[in-house]
Amino acid sequence: MSLDLDVSTDGVLTADTHLVQSWANLHALKQDGARTVIVAADGAFVFDSEGNRLIDGIGGLWCVNAGHRRREIIDAITTQLETLDFYSTFYNFTHPPAAALAAKLAELAPGPLNKVHFSSSGSDANDGAVRILHHYFNRLGRPAKKKVLSRHGAYHGSTHLAIAMTTPGYSEGWDRAEGLVHHLRCPHYWREGDGMSEAEFLDALLDDLRDTIERIGAENIACYIAEPIMGAGGVIVPPEGYHRAMAAICRDNEIKYIADEVVTAFGRLGHFFASEAVFGVQPDIITVAKGVTSGYQPLAATILSDEIHEVVSSPGGMFFHGMTYSGHPAGAAAGLANIGLMESERIPERVRTSGRRFEAGLRALGDLDMVGEVRGSHFMMGIEFVRDKADKTPFAPEELVGLKVAQAAQKRGLVARPLGNILILSPTLVMDDATIDRCAGILRESIAEVAAHV
Amino acid sequence: MSLDLDVSTDGVLTADTHLVQSWANLHALKQDGARTVIVAADGAFVFDSEGNRLIDGIGGLWCVNAGHRRREIIDAITTQLETLDFYSTFYNFTHPPAAALAAKLAELAPGPLNKVHFSSSGSDANDGAVRILHHYFNRLGRPAKKKVLSRHGAYHGSTHLAIAMTTPGYSEGWDRAEGLVHHLRCPHYWREGDGMSEAEFLDALLDDLRDTIERIGAENIACYIAEPIMGAGGVIVPPEGYHRAMAAICRDNEIKYIADEVVTAFGRLGHFFASEAVFGVQPDIITVAKGVTSGYQPLAATILSDEIHEVVSSPGGMFFHGMTYSGHPAGAAAGLANIGLMESERIPERVRTSGRRFEAGLRALGDLDMVGEVRGSHFMMGIEFVRDKADKTPFAPEELVGLKVAQAAQKRGLVARPLGNILILSPTLVMDDATIDRCAGILRESIAEVAAHV
Repeated sequence: MSLDLDVSTDGVLTADTHLVQSWANLHALKQDGARTVIVAADGAFVFDSEGNRLIDGIGGLWCVNAGHRRREIIDAITTQLETLDFYSTFYNFTHPPAAALAAKLAELAPGPLNKVHFSSSGSDANDGAVRILHHYFNRLGRPAKKKVLSRHGAYHGSTHLAIAMTTPGYSEGWDRAEGLVHHLRCPHYWREGDGMSEAEFLDALLDDLRDTIERIGAENIACYIAEPIMGAGGVIVPPEGYHRAMAAICRDNEIKYIADEVVTAFGRLGHFFASEAVFGVQPDIITVAKGVTSGYQPLAATILSDEIHEVVSSPGGMFFHGMTYSGHPAGAAAGLANIGLMESERIPERVRTSGRRFEAGLRALGDLDMVGEVRGSHFMMGIEFVRDKADKTPFAPEELVGLKVAQAAQKRGLVARPLGNILILSPTLVMDDATIDRCAGILRESIAEVAAHV
Repeated sequence: MSLDLDVSTDGVLTADTHLVQSWANLHALKQDGARTVIVAADGAFVFDSEGNRLIDGIGGLWCVNAGHRRREIIDAITTQLETLDFYSTFYNFTHPPAAALAAKLAELAPGPLNKVHFSSSGSDANDGAVRILHHYFNRLGRPAKKKVLSRHGAYHGSTHLAIAMTTPGYSEGWDRAEGLVHHLRCPHYWREGDGMSEAEFLDALLDDLRDTIERIGAENIACYIAEPIMGAGGVIVPPEGYHRAMAAICRDNEIKYIADEVVTAFGRLGHFFASEAVFGVQPDIITVAKGVTSGYQPLAATILSDEIHEVVSSPGGMFFHGMTYSGHPAGAAAGLANIGLMESERIPERVRTSGRRFEAGLRALGDLDMVGEVRGSHFMMGIEFVRDKADKTPFAPEELVGLKVAQAAQKRGLVARPLGNILILSPTLVMDDATIDRCAGILRESIAEVAAHV
């Protein structure tokens, strides 16, 4: 049976009036020409419904790490569906791909992170991580130890709890779990450094954590959650040594450390996991999604330390958590095939070279007047535009500068993601050198075009 | 690339030590022989790693409605992955399968439910429904209108918010969103009727709702959420007229009505949606998951009324909600193919006959001493075991009667789901008559075996 999907722009947009887009200005999307229809993809590229080939500069959504249309991943999904299309990992059931992917993730994850609970989105993996830690502390007879420390600028998802851990600006007009989460300072030196040296700024961040623990009480704090590099908050790389120092303070206060590696894992920074390999941190929990399947299937995981698992699997309690598709056979097969590809093609290792080339190309845009800061690492980059470079005066939101640059880039064949005055690039990890260089070229032209009119 | 998965019992169980099962007694699962490995599936059957063919009496997990290994669904997924493996429906992006499935769901859903936000699990669809309604009332300048009415016995998922809407017993030892949710009485006449006639019991349930609204204040209540037939709470069918009367009271108080049709939609009760067709109710939001793809892909949807959408898409606000895989191309393609199959094979219509046969076969077990109540409808059934039929005395939890019957049934070739003293059956919708009758036969033998030893 063929679905006979209408892939014409008009046909798709007519049906699309029934679709509620995510993270969008729904009113603005009602206007003619506001929506872009993506109909196909191959390698580092996607194709829109007008026949344009575009460099997928956002990698789907920070996720198509191995590139589009990889035969090996598609075949693994198809073969799995032909064998066992679905069974759950509820109660006493398990199946080969979920077990095998759990074992593989335990092998790749740093240190004693050996126990894997699956879900289908990063939101759920983070929501679940906190739920599991709450249960953990209940089991230990410390039911007051429940608060969560997050950070301004964080993005941890969009369930009622996950959005509460996300930077407050992303719930304006929306509600979130009340009373549980405290937001620490954003570790963005360029924007928040305020005349301090970077070392002084780091001290201020650590003091903020210490003061917060002192005020709330370590006995009331379950965990700290942090992305190694903040993603949707604007690609914020913290000062050198920040993560190690934050982790040490958490450890001293028996505060569990959750590393949200939804974006940073599976090659984007040149390693399967960034926490230990890049930042020297051993978390108690790592959450992953996106790159674990390169986006081919919805799959996420909350990877627990043996110690946490030992407590929550001891006699006398029930693990009241999980979703129907936790460990979906097709998702697990996609994860295994994707990791297999990354290993056989040495994708993370190659990123250490190609990602540096991409990063260098973008950093060179820092000479442009409109560019305040180029930041990030490897294939996770952000460019912040400013009205005045010297004093970092931002453009007004209604000038839509990020959006205008993104539109100018898309016209030239590159998809990039605007976020206020920031442009985010999180491409596939498989661009050749010419395509990598083309990204920087398109961005230079696009920024120049917009600069001439603002 | 073949994944070369080890499908031997020992091989899978060795890897499986890294997997954290969902909704399980993790300690009990550490014992030898506690776990069942499912390796393959076909039609109405699954196969375990010991080579046993089992009737899939739980339909994966209330979800494999169209049956296992359906070529049409698998081909649609493969073809979609070969065309566009992944793009998001974030910001201004859309793609053909998400748009087409949104339009199809709008066509099938009752009345003005024409706007579809996708996610990947029923938990997220319900969590998101409440988040969207909170935003809706914020937009209307009624920020106090936030509380959620749910019911004892409900199951709405396992995020921090979804578990708060679920029956309190399912968060024992776990935490949940505080202060938001009030649980109304469980509409289970047989267990809760307490000497009343069914009409009196219905009045008591409606009074509970009215009293609760009076006490909390309609101006503080955003919504009421209800499964048409409670699923994981034990397959509870409410008294005749209950849903219509509850909906009328909600409407009179401007309380939005969310129908959680994660289990009841897509044929299980003989219709694509049960709310209006079976229960005469027009909800403001319907959430679906499971059967929408027959479980082949993780996909869920929160289907909004035009009126709700109009408010949340009016100028001046942002739709700060959604997950990377909201409307995943492969999931949307699976949904379209699955619905196409259901339409071409008239699966919902056929369930009106075959489901009645299944239901009748199980109801006949009511003559057994140990069977207190057989309840449910069509392919959504529960059997509650009692120590004393006359006074409905339950077995003690530690007698594990449900588990023992399930084990006896599995030995005889039928997977059923124990839930304390209840056994739940939610098979595929494609069993032939002989297989349907075999279910009842196996259950009769299994109950007799257990009855002889308790």
